[in-house]
Amino acid sequence: MCELHGGEDFGQDVLDAGLLVRSSVRGVVARSGTFEGVVEGFEAYVTRHGADQQAEVLRFPPLFPRADYGRVNHIHNFPDLLGSVHTFLGSERDHRKLVLEFEDGQDWTRGLVSAETMLIPAACYPLYPLLEGELTGTRCVDLRSWVFRHEPSDDLPRMQCFRQREYVRVGTADQAWAHRELWRERALELLLNLGLPAVSQPANDPFFGRGGRLAKATQREQDLKYEVLVPVTSTDKPTAISSQNCHLDAFGTAFGIRLPDGSPAHTACVGFGLERIALALFKTHGLRLEDWPTSVRAELGL
Amino acid sequence: MCELHGGEDFGQDVLDAGLLVRSSVRGVVARSGTFEGVVEGFEAYVTRHGADQQAEVLRFPPLFPRADYGRVNHIHNFPDLLGSVHTFLGSERDHRKLVLEFEDGQDWTRGLVSAETMLIPAACYPLYPLLEGELTGTRCVDLRSWVFRHEPSDDLPRMQCFRQREYVRVGTADQAWAHRELWRERALELLLNLGLPAVSQPANDPFFGRGGRLAKATQREQDLKYEVLVPVTSTDKPTAISSQNCHLDAFGTAFGIRLPDGSPAHTACVGFGLERIALALFKTHGLRLEDWPTSVRAELGL
Repeated sequence: MCELHGGEDFGQDVLDAGLLVRSSVRGVVARSGTFEGVVEGFEAYVTRHGADQQAEVLRFPPLFPRADYGRVNHIHNFPDLLGSVHTFLGSERDHRKLVLEFEDGQDWTRGLVSAETMLIPAACYPLYPLLEGELTGTRCVDLRSWVFRHEPSDDLPRMQCFRQREYVRVGTADQAWAHRELWRERALELLLNLGLPAVSQPANDPFFGRGGRLAKATQREQDLKYEVLVPVTSTDKPTAISSQNCHLDAFGTAFGIRLPDGSPAHTACVGFGLERIALALFKTHGLRLEDWPTSVRAELGL
Repeated sequence: MCELHGGEDFGQDVLDAGLLVRSSVRGVVARSGTFEGVVEGFEAYVTRHGADQQAEVLRFPPLFPRADYGRVNHIHNFPDLLGSVHTFLGSERDHRKLVLEFEDGQDWTRGLVSAETMLIPAACYPLYPLLEGELTGTRCVDLRSWVFRHEPSDDLPRMQCFRQREYVRVGTADQAWAHRELWRERALELLLNLGLPAVSQPANDPFFGRGGRLAKATQREQDLKYEVLVPVTSTDKPTAISSQNCHLDAFGTAFGIRLPDGSPAHTACVGFGLERIALALFKTHGLRLEDWPTSVRAELGL
């Protein structure tokens, strides 16, 4: 049994220690250098233990084409979490109106129109459009992106904007399934090895509305997605800090990624929630790096 | 005189070499591992040469509160570049309508409403709200953010979403001015030292509309902002890769950051456009790291 550090309100302790700094919007926070050091240390640790994947590295900006967003089912399943980029395309005359509305304290954003992009809901979404066409062999891609989920919350680990590190496998059904299985074990081991009281269990995604209940049941029945959970701000409701997900041929079909036999490719990914993992480490080992176990600091190069 | 590498169309050469990968939206590109290695190497180089600043590190997500956006003059000066985050806040009934519009190929984004956040137009904007109140001594803050500018372009260095690394000084008028002057020299030296054919000149910001002409003239007259330019995709129109800007008391006034005597604090910053600097290095030294001068590779740890 791990001893949990921090007072009754761990989130407040993190803020008091200056590890994170709140803004006026819930779930939008700044990261201190110490916090970033833990994130960077964890990323290097994952890279080391993922070297056998021989993954190619790709890094996307925090937004991607709206046209590609329209090819996944996010608008059906998670509309309440989406982030759409809007901008001003008007004339000088329209601009004077915009500024007047702004200065009068009215809702000036009604004068904006949608740009060509959406904020990224999951790190692997921008990858698939680049793979359209016939797949040669199997590919593994190493991703890290800022992702957005509009779920304003006072719970510190539930940020609106955070970073996911992923390894995505694209290949046959067997290869995708094997990737999910490999990382279901490995992600748990890597997190346990850092002293975290981590457990693995089937995922429980917050699909929207009544229709979402069916999607949720299907996800569970098909045994597609697992999560690793650790207590961070609550022992009763531990926080998901990693997930391993087999998408079957959903993205292969949606983006026209084909195997040599013409059938759609299968995909799977492991994702690490970098801010949540850093918070889990501070929760488990204490707010001061000096107090962390030597072995954990060594693994993270801290 | 530096010999410039690459063919007639350097942007295409960069894409052909796989250093960057285009999406279907102009100015939204993926970065390869090799490209990211150059960015990381340059960041470490800046950190080394900025150590005397004893800056505190803060890292913001790519968006910040709309309320804080409203306290800078961006909506007046650069409305055409802004990025506003919109989301779906409706009922299940509204959602069915949204999905119908989406499936019919209509503009479903009209069913969205503005969230509480804006994409960050410049890396230092999210900092100032955190400094509200009385300033003790002078502060230097080390920032890196993804910033957004809605200017879709086929010119590869002109991305919609890119990273800025900054050192921001907050203090007296003299301290802010000294920071601008220090970094006007040092940024140029650091970039020349990497073999870049860099020149420094007064900045030329794209203020919006007829009113913008006055703002542009004022910026020049007051000698506030300098840029470092290097030829990347054009020799005639070199690309700005760094800027050094004294803001006088604009942010101190807007965000209530006060000196001990009650007067508003002054601020200044140096910014490095990380993607543009990486592109300038590839343009100047060639598309293959193996061909770069040994001294440059050593400075960047490549």
